[in-house]
This record gives sequence, structure tokens and C-alpha cells, in this order.
Amino acid sequence: MKHQELIFTNSVAQAIDTAVEQIKPSNVFVLVDINTERHVLQQLRKQSSALAKAMPITVKDGDEHKNLESLTYIWECLCDNGATRNSLLINLGGGVITDMGAFAAATFKRGIHFINVPTTLLAAVDAAVGGKTGINFNGLKNEIGAFSEAQVVIISTAFFGSLPHEELLSGFAEMLKHGLISNEEAYNRLLAYDITSDPTGDALLNLLQESVEVKRRIVEEDPTEKGIRRALNLGHTVGHAFESLALMRDTPVPHGYAVAWGLVAELVLSNMYLEFPSAQLSTLAQYIYENYGAIDITCNDYPTLLQLMHHDKKNHSNEINFTMLEGVGKIKIDCTASEEDIKTALDIFRDLMHI
Amino acid sequence: MKHQELIFTNSVAQAIDTAVEQIKPSNVFVLVDINTERHVLQQLRKQSSALAKAMPITVKDGDEHKNLESLTYIWECLCDNGATRNSLLINLGGGVITDMGAFAAATFKRGIHFINVPTTLLAAVDAAVGGKTGINFNGLKNEIGAFSEAQVVIISTAFFGSLPHEELLSGFAEMLKHGLISNEEAYNRLLAYDITSDPTGDALLNLLQESVEVKRRIVEEDPTEKGIRRALNLGHTVGHAFESLALMRDTPVPHGYAVAWGLVAELVLSNMYLEFPSAQLSTLAQYIYENYGAIDITCNDYPTLLQLMHHDKKNHSNEINFTMLEGVGKIKIDCTASEEDIKTALDIFRDLMHI
Repeated sequence: MKHQELIFTNSVAQAIDTAVEQIKPSNVFVLVDINTERHVLQQLRKQSSALAKAMPITVKDGDEHKNLESLTYIWECLCDNGATRNSLLINLGGGVITDMGAFAAATFKRGIHFINVPTTLLAAVDAAVGGKTGINFNGLKNEIGAFSEAQVVIISTAFFGSLPHEELLSGFAEMLKHGLISNEEAYNRLLAYDITSDPTGDALLNLLQESVEVKRRIVEEDPTEKGIRRALNLGHTVGHAFESLALMRDTPVPHGYAVAWGLVAELVLSNMYLEFPSAQLSTLAQYIYENYGAIDITCNDYPTLLQLMHHDKKNHSNEINFTMLEGVGKIKIDCTASEEDIKTALDIFRDLMHI
Repeated sequence: MKHQELIFTNSVAQAIDTAVEQIKPSNVFVLVDINTERHVLQQLRKQSSALAKAMPITVKDGDEHKNLESLTYIWECLCDNGATRNSLLINLGGGVITDMGAFAAATFKRGIHFINVPTTLLAAVDAAVGGKTGINFNGLKNEIGAFSEAQVVIISTAFFGSLPHEELLSGFAEMLKHGLISNEEAYNRLLAYDITSDPTGDALLNLLQESVEVKRRIVEEDPTEKGIRRALNLGHTVGHAFESLALMRDTPVPHGYAVAWGLVAELVLSNMYLEFPSAQLSTLAQYIYENYGAIDITCNDYPTLLQLMHHDKKNHSNEINFTMLEGVGKIKIDCTASEEDIKTALDIFRDLMHI
């Protein structure tokens, strides 16, 4: 996989102009949603000569528009406005924009240049790095996609001042996951960080850089998820099931909240199978409960949750696959758990989360 | 790029079963069009246990159905029939099936296993090897796609007995191109081959193997077409323009015929710019004229043809890019020609082709 440049900066406009000068594209497009067009692009265009000249492509905001219809619209805009194989697409927005824009760029004329400029913490820590691109399809998340890395990812906390607290917490859950799969020191720095403090400051930018580097190291080792990259799925098998269940009930929850709860549930399994320390499990459960609250489930939801876990795209045939931890930073991929044990883990999860 | 296994055999069913045993997929799908379903799959299912158990996905035949609608249908069939990341898609058909099926497989859950079993000479020599996958979009050929190689490509002349003569000639034009970019001996062997003889015999299988190996060597050196792979575009800049012109007139021509004429036109340019030997140019022109006839163009078509060449996806900005030859096997990529010279070349082309 080609080398991807990660830039951590609070001078975003300048970083964009420098990247565009290096790539020397024949023309530049910028993908935004109606929110980032109004609140981010209009401002940045005044400071970036590349963005001032770029042709904007605007899609509706929200995960429900990360679909084939929006993708087709992006392809058409590129096509109708003279995009060549040497054109550049700048994806300026949250995870929906970086995932979908990257997939559009990866497949237009079999691949044009693209840069990701994530504007949410979740996109910065997760979606903008690692080459996973895609759209939702047939009711399933990220069902259609490709592995393709941006040439450059520009990561900045400058956008986070206006993010709702819920958005920040959602991204922070993925940072906690990176802490859990790296080492005790990094993990403890995260638990000690005051997430109610100023999110545009250097403290968060430093933690974010450390967190993104964890992901980058793992992705470089295993770009197409044949092995160790599955470590990044910690919390996500149960987390995705929680997220889908909430969606089915028409009470959607932010992705990061589902992951936060998923982390607790999968560390319960880690405790059962690999003796992940009970004290650390309790600390995390308490932290998540205090900051994220809890998802409202009963044992009547277990069959649906199990079925949703079976549908996860990481699962081969009939087994349910988990990444588990023996301790912080001690990863074991390709673990499987029986349905009975998963139900027991969900019981313990509900106790820990006071449900 | 991962290693791709090429198998040249006339025991297709056995080769498929062996490949499936090696891949050990969770389940198997086979993509066919209504022709290959009836004329090829029904027969092969009796001999191949893997195909007998496979779930067929049938699309309409013809390049006009190599589109987003068919692609969406394939994705839906995979989705609705329990395809996992460890499923296998066998693409059994001509270039439409191998290009579109490979793209569907490359993007479903960000990539599942696929095998190509080309059933036409053109697909065997060109489309099934080299990782170029895709669909037509917005009136442009292969506008959306990806680079992704099949795990295994099974190449056989066993299917060619029932191919129309026109189909065989269409594929043979790509073999001539491979001959021209390899060496005099290989090229002369092709000119000496009697294309009216039995196409299922060993003579063609041997020539085909030699030809596919030319392509494979070049693709291995430059999988994503940054340099030498452009050698494979010989004949295609003008050829695609001829093909599109014919389509615009509602008198479509087979792809290989357009390439055959494109080879002559681009060797005229090679003669003008790089002194490609005039005698060899005349020999080829005569050969193409006798076997493929000629496309009906006048100087009134030149502006349209030039515009179509500008639209070719290999062209950056405003230049028209060609691969040219100093002689057989002496490749020069990234040549450019002025519009005036291209018009002159088209005049000479028309003389050579008695138009």
C-alpha cells in the first residue's frame, strides 16, 4: 500500500495548499455536505487558494445519505466537470464524507487523487486514516467499499470548537479503544483527560496524534485486514449490534456511544475467556456509564443482538468472531465465543451499566 | 499486488474444482449472462462439483448492460444470499462478465475472492488478466472501476468452437498488439497463424499463452499504470475513438476491430514521429484490411474523433497521449501528437485502408 502522509496542524488552509502544490492535479474538486459547506468551506476558501479555485460537490448530510444515490451523484459531478485521472478530490467533512468521497475517488476512472480533511473527532481518529472506504447498501453499513488510502490526511482540532459534546464523546470512544490496544500509559492518559475542557487546544491534538499513530502502525502492518488489523475491531462486534438495534427501534445512537458500550461488553468476554483484570473492567464500565450513559436493553433483545453479530462482515460462516484482550495492550485476535457465553456477558454488561 | 495464478487448460471443470478447493470459500456464486448460463454453465455444472453447488447470478448480455443497474443487481444477489467476506465469485463469460463481476467482487464488503473464467478470445487475452475491472457510466466506457486481480484465471480454448468468426478476430487484434510490443518472432508467429483454422486446437492455445504472458509481465511491472503498462494502450487511443464514433452512429463495431484499425493509425503516427519501418506498416495495414475490412470515415469525422481522443481517461489535461513504436518490440510511452499530425495520420490511414 502506498505511503500516506498524516499532517497534524491547526493551519489547515496552508496545509491544503501545500498538499495540492505537491500533487499538482489537473483540477480540484471538494466534497462537502450542506453543513461543512456553510460552516467550514466558506471560511477556508478565504484562506486557501486551492479551495478558492476548487469545484464544490455538495451532498446531503447524515449517515442515511451515505448511499448509492449520493455516490452516483458524486461520480456524475466528476464526470460532467472534466475530472481526469490526474484530478484531486478533497473530502472535507465527517466520516460520511471521508468514507464516501474516498470510495468515489478510488473508483472514478479506477482511482484519482484524494485528500481527507476530517472535521469531526470521530472522522479524525477513525474514518480518515486506514484506507477503509465505502457506502451503506441494502440496509447494511459499509457493505460496498474498497481499501484505498488518501495521499494526505490533514488532522486538526480547529474544527472541534463548534462540535456538540455528543460528537466529541463519540470520537473519544475510538480513542479509548486505541488506548486499550496500545499500552497502559497511553490508556491512562486518556482516562485522565478532561473531555469537558476546550477541544481545540493542544492537549487533545497531542492525544489525537498518539491515537491516530496507533491505528496507522496497525494498518501499515496489515492493510487489508487479514490479521492484526482486526485488533481495531475491539468493541465493534457488539457495538455494531447495539447500533443496528437502536436504528431498528428508530432511536439511533451515535456510533461512538455504541462502540463505548461495545468495549465494555467485549471486555466482559475478555474477562471470561482471557482473564482481563476485573478491576480495570469495572473502572472502564464506570467511566463509560458516567460519560455515555447506557443503552436500554433487556434479555428479550438478546436473540436480535446475536443475529446482528452473525451478520457482521468480519464473520466467516457461522462463528461469531471477537478481538479480545488479556490486559491493556495484550491483544488476541480471532477469538470466538458461544451464544450462551455472549448472553452471559450481556447479563454482566447490564449489571455493570446499571440497566 | 498479490500474485495471480494463470491456468492454461482444456479441462476447465477440473481446474475450477481445484481452485475452489485451494481457496476454501464459505460459499460460491457464479456470475453468467443469459448466453453463458445456457451454453456454458449448464454443461460445466455436470462436470464440476463446485459449480453444481454454486448459486448462479444471471445478468443480461451485452456491453450496454455493463452498467450500474447490473452491478447493483449483483451486489444485491450477494447480499441477499448470505455472501460473506470469505465467499467466492466465479465470473464465467466474456469481457462484460469478467470486468463487471471482478468489480462487484472487489467492492462487496471491500473485497471477496473471485476467479475469472473467460469464454471469449478477447476476454481471455485482455479482460481477464491485469486487474482492470469496471463498468460503463454516464455514456463512458469503464468510467467507474478499480484495479483488482482475480486469485485465479482459468484460460481455455474449449469455449471457442461456437464463437462467431467476428468474435475470434476481435480477440486476435489484442494478440497482434501484444505481438507488436514484444518481439519480431512472436509477432511473425501471429501473422503466420491461420485464423480460419480450428480455434479450439493447441496452436491457438499456445499463441494465447504467449500473448497473455506478455501482458502479465507488463502488468506485474506496473500494476496501476503509472508507466510501462501504457504500452498496452497501443492502438487504443484512436481505437476507442473509432469505437465511440461507431456507437454514436448506431453502427457499433466489435472492440477488437476498432483496436485493429487503431493499431494501423497509431503505427502511422509511429512512422511519422519515430520512423517505425514503412514496410512493416504496409504489411500490417494490408493484413488488417483483408481480415477486418475498414471503418467508414471521412475528413468530416476528424473533429469528432479528436474530441473523443481528448476524452480518453489516460489523457491528462489537454494533450493527446499515445504509445508509439520505433519498431516491433521497441516501445515509447507518453508520446504526444499535435492535432494537425493526427489529422495527417488519419489521411494516411484512409489511404492504407482504401477508404
